Amino acid sequence: MLELRLVQGSLLKKVLEAIKELVTDANFDCSSTGFSLQAMDSSHVALVALLLRSEGFEHYRCDRNISMGMNLNNMAKMLKCAGNDDIITIKADDGSDTVTFMFESPTQDKISDFEMKLMDIDSEHLGIPEAEYHAIVRMPSTEFARICKDLSSIGDTVVISVTKEGVKFSTKGDIGAANIVCRQNTSVDKPEEATVIEMNDPVSLSFALRYMNSFTKATPLSSTVTISLSNELPVVVEYKIAEMGYVRFYLAPKIEEEEEESKPQA
Amino acid sequence: MLELRLVQGSLLKKVLEAIKELVTDANFDCSSTGFSLQAMDSSHVALVALLLRSEGFEHYRCDRNISMGMNLNNMAKMLKCAGNDDIITIKADDGSDTVTFMFESPTQDKISDFEMKLMDIDSEHLGIPEAEYHAIVRMPSTEFARICKDLSSIGDTVVISVTKEGVKFSTKGDIGAANIVCRQNTSVDKPEEATVIEMNDPVSLSFALRYMNSFTKATPLSSTVTISLSNELPVVVEYKIAEMGYVRFYLAPKIEEEEEESKPQA
Amino acid sequence: MLELRLVQGSLLKKVLEAIKELVTDANFDCSSTGFSLQAMDSSHVALVALLLRSEGFEHYRCDRNISMGMNLNNMAKMLKCAGNDDIITIKADDGSDTVTFMFESPTQDKISDFEMKLMDIDSEHLGIPEAEYHAIVRMPSTEFARICKDLSSIGDTVVISVTKEGVKFSTKGDIGAANIVCRQNTSVDKPEEATVIEMNDPVSLSFALRYMNSFTKATPLSSTVTISLSNELPVVVEYKIAEMGYVRFYLAPKIEEEEEESKPQA
Repeated sequence: MLELRLVQGSLLKKVLEAIKELVTDANFDCSSTGFSLQAMDSSHVALVALLLRSEGFEHYRCDRNISMGMNLNNMAKMLKCAGNDDIITIKADDGSDTVTFMFESPTQDKISDFEMKLMDIDSEHLGIPEAEYHAIVRMPSTEFARICKDLSSIGDTVVISVTKEGVKFSTKGDIGAANIVCRQNTSVDKPEEATVIEMNDPVSLSFALRYMNSFTKATPLSSTVTISLSNELPVVVEYKIAEMGYVRFYLAPKIEEEEEESKPQA
Repeated sequence: MLELRLVQGSLLKKVLEAIKELVTDANFDCSSTGFSLQAMDSSHVALVALLLRSEGFEHYRCDRNISMGMNLNNMAKMLKCAGNDDIITIKADDGSDTVTFMFESPTQDKISDFEMKLMDIDSEHLGIPEAEYHAIVRMPSTEFARICKDLSSIGDTVVISVTKEGVKFSTKGDIGAANIVCRQNTSVDKPEEATVIEMNDPVSLSFALRYMNSFTKATPLSSTVTISLSNELPVVVEYKIAEMGYVRFYLAPKIEEEEEESKPQA
Repeated sequence: MLELRLVQGSLLKKVLEAIKELVTDANFDCSSTGFSLQAMDSSHVALVALLLRSEGFEHYRCDRNISMGMNLNNMAKMLKCAGNDDIITIKADDGSDTVTFMFESPTQDKISDFEMKLMDIDSEHLGIPEAEYHAIVRMPSTEFARICKDLSSIGDTVVISVTKEGVKFSTKGDIGAANIVCRQNTSVDKPEEATVIEMNDPVSLSFALRYMNSFTKATPLSSTVTISLSNELPVVVEYKIAEMGYVRFYLAPKIEEEEEESKPQA
């Protein structure tokens, strides 16, 4: 039997909004340590990893490891019916082909339960090794979202270049070119407004803006985002979920040829 | 001659927004007692009844009973041109084929008059007998609107079941099933936040969510909604208009077969 | 070399939003006196004139007169990437076929530069003679925008009639007719809320509402709008840009035949 009670139910609503654009169907894995998900996007280019640790739940009962296949759009539809202040409980009986989301209003005057059919989804769990990154940038998540959106109006590919002084986001397209430089800045009033750069080696990598923009759907989950970059490794764009875990997005860099946006003549 | 001056003109704007989705053309009936309308929706399934009593107008002159056929979309277009703080006066000369809406800004610096052509509309006035209802639920109108909207993302039909403890709204559809229970709750800070149930007999009836959602367009008119239920009688969903009258929506329950959403095989 | 630094960069963003609906491509003319533009709309009916005087810039360097052809949609896309509190600098090297917009955030932590390709645009500069107007109306720009929008829901043409008492905006269409009268009113709390009429002769002229509505895209630039009317002259709709200049729109009146909206039978 599974029963997970999350007082801050809005977190789960935000998690679904963060990942449902990238992933259509996915297995949620539940064990004694937490509630997690790992899934490729539908074009098998980006990887999403979610972890909500069991300590973050008010009540967490998971008798045995279970993997529940869900359609994320349908799940998001149901979670949208939860109020932002509602307590959300996820329930499933052993061997059941459904999962139930229960929403309790803060005053306990309104109790909803939404039962969703589960799906069988083939998936293999990828081991993601801990890696050393050449550069790690932490910056306000709204700033990163704004930059990805702004650059998308000019081009399709962003080049992210990190030096000790700052991080540069560049693109070019038919109408022109753009460079946005964010300087390292740790002397801010609020720690979440800082831009902090940890760098071992300078790095400059290209990524598809389309995916970066999808990742920024997670912005409501955290006031900061951490971007870990290394040559020959996928970038990790991580949104921490306060005291509970994270949503991480992995995306392979574009190769040189694509970076230059050279188009072969037909 | 007809001259009805309504200081709180925004009420009339809200009335039109409440009913124009259901009803395209309708006769407004004006008599010494008030300004009223009764009309079926275009698919002849739901009935709308509006009453604005003469006492609610600052000035109310209606020399003889008159019925004015109006296209509600056109009327709504004109009323949208009134400011929310404007005084609205409805004027018509005897035998005229037009009606004039006059809008005065609070400072009297801006005076608008909008003249609309009247239409000939066949209609018969249905007598709606006073009835005894098995159960009457009064609840916050925004809560009811939220429930109808939420359930529409899951199914097409809502089952409303009333017991002494509360009212349950249920639906099911392709992706699953949902139940929302609102408990009776009269110990609230503001009376309009209460959920109050008067029940003679338990009742459980099914309705098309599409119509319920249309009814909730009247939510801005009143902070509470009253739902009167009885077996074999249409449900009445009533929004009171402060000190003036009401908008009432009538809808027949779905029969059992439809409730079960059984679809005959072709 | 050209280098124009505008501390209140949001002004330039608003200017582009004000004119890009009317004008697709245009030459910006830069001289020692200021940064200006004059262009017909794409259907050659309305004329737009913009002036930003050099005194309004924090730094203004323009070594020699230069005319830069820009696609206004692309320029607006780039300026949308500037924050509302950003300082904007426009830069161009002599003989270059690009212009650069640089955006500096207030804290200087984020510096962006957007490079846009210039275009060759044929245009002739029209001399607009100073003229005497029969009537000049100054009114709140939001009020004027609201009136144009409201009347558009009824008809296609607005008749603007000015008398000593006030200004009347009228239209008619298939569903009826509308008149909106704004009375002269100078006894207001804030000067920008006044409606002030300077009149030598009464005047009554007809204009296409479609263009008037496009002009009101400039509303965010100024809290007041000035409408200068004269028989046989184009109306001038002017939005002042605080201490820097203006955006002016010119539109020829419709002739009598059109005013009556008579449609010949086929």
